[in-house]
Amino acid sequence: MIIDGLQYNNWNRALFEQARAENLTAIHVTVSYWENAEETEANIRQWNRWFDEHDDLILPVLNGADLERAASSQRTGIILGFQNCSPIEDDYRGVERMHSLGARIMQLSYNNQSLLATGCYEEHDGGVTRFGREVIREMNRLGMIIDMSHSAEESTLQAIKYSNRPIVISHANPSSFHSALRNKSDRVLDALAAEGGLLGCSLYPFHLPGGADCSRALFCQMLCRLVDRLGIEHVGLGSDLCLGWGYDKLAWMRNGRWAKTTDHGEDDSGTPAWPDQPPWFSGLAGFREIDEGLVQEGMSRGEIDRIMGLNWQAFLDEGLAPEAA
Amino acid sequence: MIIDGLQYNNWNRALFEQARAENLTAIHVTVSYWENAEETEANIRQWNRWFDEHDDLILPVLNGADLERAASSQRTGIILGFQNCSPIEDDYRGVERMHSLGARIMQLSYNNQSLLATGCYEEHDGGVTRFGREVIREMNRLGMIIDMSHSAEESTLQAIKYSNRPIVISHANPSSFHSALRNKSDRVLDALAAEGGLLGCSLYPFHLPGGADCSRALFCQMLCRLVDRLGIEHVGLGSDLCLGWGYDKLAWMRNGRWAKTTDHGEDDSGTPAWPDQPPWFSGLAGFREIDEGLVQEGMSRGEIDRIMGLNWQAFLDEGLAPEAA
Repeated sequence: MIIDGLQYNNWNRALFEQARAENLTAIHVTVSYWENAEETEANIRQWNRWFDEHDDLILPVLNGADLERAASSQRTGIILGFQNCSPIEDDYRGVERMHSLGARIMQLSYNNQSLLATGCYEEHDGGVTRFGREVIREMNRLGMIIDMSHSAEESTLQAIKYSNRPIVISHANPSSFHSALRNKSDRVLDALAAEGGLLGCSLYPFHLPGGADCSRALFCQMLCRLVDRLGIEHVGLGSDLCLGWGYDKLAWMRNGRWAKTTDHGEDDSGTPAWPDQPPWFSGLAGFREIDEGLVQEGMSRGEIDRIMGLNWQAFLDEGLAPEAA
Repeated sequence: MIIDGLQYNNWNRALFEQARAENLTAIHVTVSYWENAEETEANIRQWNRWFDEHDDLILPVLNGADLERAASSQRTGIILGFQNCSPIEDDYRGVERMHSLGARIMQLSYNNQSLLATGCYEEHDGGVTRFGREVIREMNRLGMIIDMSHSAEESTLQAIKYSNRPIVISHANPSSFHSALRNKSDRVLDALAAEGGLLGCSLYPFHLPGGADCSRALFCQMLCRLVDRLGIEHVGLGSDLCLGWGYDKLAWMRNGRWAKTTDHGEDDSGTPAWPDQPPWFSGLAGFREIDEGLVQEGMSRGEIDRIMGLNWQAFLDEGLAPEAA
């Protein structure tokens, strides 16, 4: 079972077929970066069309049972998620509304300050806000998973503290592996794991030492060290694959509607383009590479299986259940 | 000339007549607390209807010349303003859009964390955000005045620093007069005045020592001390009068759509009701009381006139002009 903790692709049937060919049981896909409620609903409607049109290949994942269904029917389960809280706008009721539409994972902030928490590119980190605490309670209640991938350090520590259920960092790497505003300190990773959380390790070039030059072995060695530090059950994958988009989509991700002055995030190349992926992870076939890489590092089959998908399965199975009354 | 730096009343013709009877040249009125773009536009449309229906009593103020027009035609100028940045939503272009609709003053945050800055009721203050700096530039460019009445300390200091034009705190008092999360430290007031800003002193009970029991003399003595500390040109009035509303409106102001758990702000009475005003300032006739109170404190007519309105006039005349190209 392979579960990928994040992808944002320009989806089409060929990609769904690839996901099947690579035996992906589930993928957490992004339906909002800066999209507001109305725009997010339009994106979800698009997914609902795809669920109908390609129901031989994909199905929506609303709970742990759907993951089992995906596996047993040899299809790829799709977990709809938000990289920001913009879909709920200023309304705590938006959590329930978006949950009812099928969303199951939400980041509390995306790079910038949101109404809930601070993003990793802000100069100062005010932590989880008053509204943020209300929303965390709602997410806990409904079984919508809190994701702090693009949030700032103190905000992430507070989210772990305020949430009464484990949270996820769906796509990031340890700062000790590569220093980047998007990667996570040992302090955050230790707190995440101590409270039952999960880290999905990222293949996005800006999260890797050397970017596209990062070797498969280097990446797999990082996974091994992470298992040693956090414990096997807290380590998974979140590839952050972004296939098939033009630059306009990257500009949207980086600048939304908020930046009059173009912002390039952590890309200091001055080139307005998507960064190159490592050649061994340029698409969905890359998961096989990681599996092989971990074998080469001497990891056991049982541990590899957990990293490739079983940890995500266990986390989702528990995390997507509504809170016990 | 009397100019009031903030009122939020349940407006009707009788109130406009009172404003005339009390010789109010201009009032900064609130058209948004938590209202988004669409809701704010509806509120502005309502004002545009009133501008037509009551054009013998009121007129919109878009610039300093309109203040002169209000004075010379013996009408009350209305300055449309927002107590929060919710009307621009997540879009820097919202500043120009709202400016084109007639809005001239905007607070960067209202009690809570906003996308631009932190509010005074948050536990932590992250300062002005990345989006906030973009918006400050837009407001500076267009001549929309930055108001930090409900913002937190560090955010306010940063707004003063990042803005290349003077800002206002339209309705608050010094913390040294009454300790409250909504009142302002000497550090903030000194920085405000040093950069040419203006403080509108508030008559809202939670901003006064003893609430409704605060005497006229005590309030006027505070104004005198403030003149000594900041200089006469930085002191005005911003009554924060809220006439004619039921509790539902107060609940909206305090809780918006963000609070599932009812929040009472700085009201620890446990009573879901509007606080009582001081008897000497329970309505628009209160401005005469302040004038008389300042006379009793021995303030000169010239200084009293500045506090009652001329300082606001000078500030608005400069602040509402678009930035020189």
